[in-house]
Amino acid sequence: MMLLNTLTIVGVGLIGGSLGLAARKRGLAQHIVGVGRDVARLHEALERGAIDEGTADLAEACSRSDLLIFCTPVNRIAQQVLQVLANCGPGTIVTDAGSVKAAIVADIEKSPLSSAHFVGGHPLAGSEKKGVAYANADLFVDRVTVLTPTERTNLIAVQTVRAFWQALGSRVHQMTPSEHDEALAMTSHLPHLVASALAGVLDPRWHALAATGFRDTTRIAAGDPEVWTPIFEQNRAAVLASLTVLEERLRQFRAALTDSQSAHIDSLLFNGKKVRDALGS
Amino acid sequence: MMLLNTLTIVGVGLIGGSLGLAARKRGLAQHIVGVGRDVARLHEALERGAIDEGTADLAEACSRSDLLIFCTPVNRIAQQVLQVLANCGPGTIVTDAGSVKAAIVADIEKSPLSSAHFVGGHPLAGSEKKGVAYANADLFVDRVTVLTPTERTNLIAVQTVRAFWQALGSRVHQMTPSEHDEALAMTSHLPHLVASALAGVLDPRWHALAATGFRDTTRIAAGDPEVWTPIFEQNRAAVLASLTVLEERLRQFRAALTDSQSAHIDSLLFNGKKVRDALGS
Repeated sequence: MMLLNTLTIVGVGLIGGSLGLAARKRGLAQHIVGVGRDVARLHEALERGAIDEGTADLAEACSRSDLLIFCTPVNRIAQQVLQVLANCGPGTIVTDAGSVKAAIVADIEKSPLSSAHFVGGHPLAGSEKKGVAYANADLFVDRVTVLTPTERTNLIAVQTVRAFWQALGSRVHQMTPSEHDEALAMTSHLPHLVASALAGVLDPRWHALAATGFRDTTRIAAGDPEVWTPIFEQNRAAVLASLTVLEERLRQFRAALTDSQSAHIDSLLFNGKKVRDALGS
Repeated sequence: MMLLNTLTIVGVGLIGGSLGLAARKRGLAQHIVGVGRDVARLHEALERGAIDEGTADLAEACSRSDLLIFCTPVNRIAQQVLQVLANCGPGTIVTDAGSVKAAIVADIEKSPLSSAHFVGGHPLAGSEKKGVAYANADLFVDRVTVLTPTERTNLIAVQTVRAFWQALGSRVHQMTPSEHDEALAMTSHLPHLVASALAGVLDPRWHALAATGFRDTTRIAAGDPEVWTPIFEQNRAAVLASLTVLEERLRQFRAALTDSQSAHIDSLLFNGKKVRDALGS
C-alpha cells in the first residue's frame, strides 16, 4: 500500500477537492496541502476535509512534497509546473489532471528537470458542476485515468503516479500525449462542442418542451467556459478533425432525410445504437 | 376527479404500460384494456399490473371504451385510429402519444368522424429503454404533455384528454400540430440525430475513454430505430430545418477554432451554458 508523507494538490476545485477527499479516505497521505490563490476557496476545502493545510506558496509546498498534482486550468499547468521544478527534492513527483496533454507535456519537457519528476495525467472524471462543494471521495472509482509518459519520463515516476491513481480506484491507461488528445477530441471535446451548439440554438419559445432527451444530450454544455475554452485552444487541430468526421455523418443523415430513404435513416440509427449499447449505461 | 369506466391502451410498451400503471395508481379507470398483436407482450403487461385485460381485437375494445390512447409507432397511429372511428360510441374519445403530430392529425382528419372523437397528443416522457418491463407509474409526473387540437376538434374531447393527463401529474400545453413538430424537431428529434451521429463515429479504439460526458451526450442514441425512423420520416422538413440551424452554429465553432479566436470560442460556450443553466438539471 502506498503512503505519502505529503501530497500537494494545486487547485482545489471539483477535481482537486475530490483528490484530497479520495486520498484521505484511503489513507494515502499523512498530510495533504492545498495550493491556491483564493483564500476563501482554500478555506472551503479545509472545511470539507479535502486538505489539511492551505497555502498560496507553491514553491515552498513543493519543497516538502512527495507528490504534487496540478488540477488548474490547462492554460496554467505547464507554466506552474515549470515554476516549481527547481524546488523539487530528488524524489518529488509531479503530475497533472489536465484534459489536454500534448501542449502541456511538450512545454514542460523543454525543461531538462522535467524528466526526473514529471508525468502527464488525466483522470476521465468530472462534472459540469464547479468547485470543492461538489467534490466526492469516490469520483475516480471505476474511472479511467490516462497517463502520458514519453521516452524521457522517469519510470519510477510513472509507477508511482500509476499506483496513486489505482489506489483511488481508477483504471490506468497509458498512451502518448498526442494519442490522448486525438482520443479525447472525439470522446470529450467534440461532445462538449456539440452539446453547447445544441443548447445555444434552442429557440427560447421551446424551453418548456426540452425534456430528458434534450437535457441529457446538452448536460455538459453547463461546464465552465473558463475551463473549456483553454481545452479547445490547446486541442484545436484534433477537435477540428473530429468535427470534420461528425459533419460527414450529419451530411449522411441529411441526404437520407432529404431523399426520404427510410432504410438509410434506419441503418444510421442502428449504427449509433450499436455503439451506444456497447458502452453500457 | 375523473373516473373512466374503460380505458383502452393500444400498444403496451414503455409508454402504454406506464399509462396503465399511472391510471391504476390514481384510480382513474375501473377497467384497463390493453390492445396488441403480441400475446407475450400483453401477458407481460397483465403480470406487471399495467392492464386488467389483453386483446387483439381493437374494434371490439373500442366499442366499449370511454377513452382510447394509441401508443403505437407513429407510422401506425393514423391508420389504426381511422380503423376504429366507426366503432366509437357517441362519447368515446380517442387520443395518441405519438412524437410527431402534423402528418397523423392530417391523415385522421380526412375522416368526417374524427372531429367528434379525436385529439392529438404527445407526452414528453420516455426513455431509451424499451418495453413494459421499464414502465413506471410516475413517468408523466411533472412532465409536459402537448395536445394539438385543430379548429375541427370537439372541445369536450380536448377537456377530457387534458383532465386525464393532468390527473397523471402532467402539465398540459396546447399548440398546433405543426408548431409541435417544429418545436420537437429542435428539442427532441435533432438531439436524437446528433447523439446517434456522435455515437456512430466513435472510433472503436476509444470506447474505454468514453466517460460520463460522452455517455450523457449520446444516451438517447440507444433508442429503438423502429420507433425513431418513422419519427424522422414524418418530421423530415422540420428536422432538416433544425439541422441547418445547428450546422450554422457548428460553422461558427469551426471558424473560431480555425482562427484560434479565444474570445469567440468563449462567447459560444457561454451562450450554450446560459441556455443549459436556465433549463435546470
